Amino acid sequence: MNREGQPFIYLDHAATSWPKPPEVTEAIVQATLHDAANPGRGSHAMAVRASRILFETRKQLAKLFRIKNPNDIAFASNTTMALNMAIKGWLKPGDHVIATTVEHNSVRRPLYYLEQTIGIEVSYIESDLTGKLKVDDVRAAIRPHTTLIIMNHSSNLLGTIMPVAEVGELARKHGIKLLVDAAQSAGILPIDVEAMGIDMLAFPGHKGLLGPQGTGGLYISPDMELEPLLHGGTGSQSEALHQPHVRPDRYEAGTQNTPGLAGLQMGVRHVLKETAASIHAKEWALSQRLLEGLKSLKPVQTLGPGIGEERTGIVAFNVEGIDPSELSFILDQHYNIAVRAGFHCTPMAHATAGTSATGAVRASVGIYTTTDEVDAFLDAIKEITEQYGI
Amino acid sequence: MNREGQPFIYLDHAATSWPKPPEVTEAIVQATLHDAANPGRGSHAMAVRASRILFETRKQLAKLFRIKNPNDIAFASNTTMALNMAIKGWLKPGDHVIATTVEHNSVRRPLYYLEQTIGIEVSYIESDLTGKLKVDDVRAAIRPHTTLIIMNHSSNLLGTIMPVAEVGELARKHGIKLLVDAAQSAGILPIDVEAMGIDMLAFPGHKGLLGPQGTGGLYISPDMELEPLLHGGTGSQSEALHQPHVRPDRYEAGTQNTPGLAGLQMGVRHVLKETAASIHAKEWALSQRLLEGLKSLKPVQTLGPGIGEERTGIVAFNVEGIDPSELSFILDQHYNIAVRAGFHCTPMAHATAGTSATGAVRASVGIYTTTDEVDAFLDAIKEITEQYGI
Repeated sequence: MNREGQPFIYLDHAATSWPKPPEVTEAIVQATLHDAANPGRGSHAMAVRASRILFETRKQLAKLFRIKNPNDIAFASNTTMALNMAIKGWLKPGDHVIATTVEHNSVRRPLYYLEQTIGIEVSYIESDLTGKLKVDDVRAAIRPHTTLIIMNHSSNLLGTIMPVAEVGELARKHGIKLLVDAAQSAGILPIDVEAMGIDMLAFPGHKGLLGPQGTGGLYISPDMELEPLLHGGTGSQSEALHQPHVRPDRYEAGTQNTPGLAGLQMGVRHVLKETAASIHAKEWALSQRLLEGLKSLKPVQTLGPGIGEERTGIVAFNVEGIDPSELSFILDQHYNIAVRAGFHCTPMAHATAGTSATGAVRASVGIYTTTDEVDAFLDAIKEITEQYGI
Repeated sequence: MNREGQPFIYLDHAATSWPKPPEVTEAIVQATLHDAANPGRGSHAMAVRASRILFETRKQLAKLFRIKNPNDIAFASNTTMALNMAIKGWLKPGDHVIATTVEHNSVRRPLYYLEQTIGIEVSYIESDLTGKLKVDDVRAAIRPHTTLIIMNHSSNLLGTIMPVAEVGELARKHGIKLLVDAAQSAGILPIDVEAMGIDMLAFPGHKGLLGPQGTGGLYISPDMELEPLLHGGTGSQSEALHQPHVRPDRYEAGTQNTPGLAGLQMGVRHVLKETAASIHAKEWALSQRLLEGLKSLKPVQTLGPGIGEERTGIVAFNVEGIDPSELSFILDQHYNIAVRAGFHCTPMAHATAGTSATGAVRASVGIYTTTDEVDAFLDAIKEITEQYGI
């Protein structure tokens, strides 16, 4: 239901999940009304409560991602900021980086910037048409000065699930650090940073973790030290000219988003209760229903893995003869269905999938999506193709 | 009142203002419940509403700071991030910067980082004991390769109001850019970027603008181009390897904090309705009451400008014989009064004020602070000094 009480189908969860569990909104309100003094900046009761909210949020995230020390998580305002912290904080002139062609612009653009400025080298490993990556191709790209492998856990266009644990094992064997972009997997696929060999994990708060926008974070393995992206006040070691080394302060200059992180905490608790594995199973089933329905329509081409294969709840597609933007506009205006059309900030993935010229329409499900909603969406697509006489 | 309904006096507004006007919390809730899809990332109705919230917030901020084009404002998660965007985005190797000794660590630490890495030179202009700055001293520090002057509008320790417009005139005459840290003045002192010669204005959302934590921004004069702090997706020009040049996209990679910015919008509207000038007048009167009361107690030394002089609502002080942390602890535990003790992330200002060894207690008022609260605070200080037999 939207604000006007009309039926409304939201299939844009890969951008931001909606609605949030009620306890998320309630936590934001409670923190705003009672607790949001400056965490770590004062000793009065309200500031202490704010600090506790941040610590408890860190603890729940650590539990979800199997991180030993919650202080190895630094908050960030979104995944892009977390990825910038990781990439710019780790890479040095002359380093070689391996990434994949399904990375988001939040990986590609920082890498391009460093290529142009400090001088690094990047090898992009080509995925197949459905986004699948061969670990052997990653292995073959390793050079003596490779210091970082970057990959997303699931493509934001194709829904493909990437072989993170295998690449993690490979990276560990070669003493190379692994940075995983969990924008489409945090809260949706099980993640165990130790078992999967993940050295840095960048994650959003506002997607699968069910928290509000303005939240996210970066896990940084305790054996790594990054140059901070932000320099500034931390409430600790005020007299030092350099950023303090103590975590999480080192990576969290400035006032943190207490109410947002209070909301995120409730989102993570919700995920822990449902478990990522069962959320994934549910979203996979919905993705199959979507895929089957779309594939039954002749003018529709779906992207990413086929029916029966592993994937997340993202199903991108094109309808022959209808521009993606037009299709998404019709869905919005005539059916109250929200999807996303365009290039999804990942031009290389479009090249991989052969949709560089057109872009694609992306439907993505979330924990509250129902089979009825999926069916209504499929009916709408069917009706539109019929009206277009395709 | 606190959550338990006990009387509670909050005098830590210089860290984060509290409480927020009711419409701020309500806007956060409404946006979370109905509008917080991805702004600028989709064409569906909810995404369009999110974009409109961001644009309207920018418009209100532009109105407040007399900025011609709202798109010259880029959002940031706090002032520290905005200052990092400005400082790291503008300075080049070999540049000379002028700053003052009352700057916060969010200015000092980025400058130190650049001194150590790319090689810049910094001159810190000494303020007098009360934080006052002589414009002649700034003029005398200008060198041929000076490209930036950085100053706060009001010291976060001393409450001193700095001669921004005079320095702005000087900077303009010499073709030097002026960056103003408005952490303690946005929403509290009138600001006119054109009239005051401000080229970049870094501001928090969660202090005088009455918005939630996790918000803030940077005004960037249209004739400046910065290297972005964050590289990543913008929802525009997806295929470009570099960050797009169009504003505000260039400086806003990643998903923005829609609910937080909806709240900030209401905070700014509240300020516009009351006017910064009348807020300042009210806070000045309260600061005078604080000063007079504190100065009447023999063992108390106040910092910053004296009675009758211009200042913001920050009054820092020390009580002879009581450690600032202990005093703030007693105020919190026995009187339910929240102040901040310590070094306030500004070691140079403490050196200027002669409190490097001890730190100080900082009481700071806000728009909802009453004279009764100030009096209760003064009574508490009096009672404590008597109990200590000082």
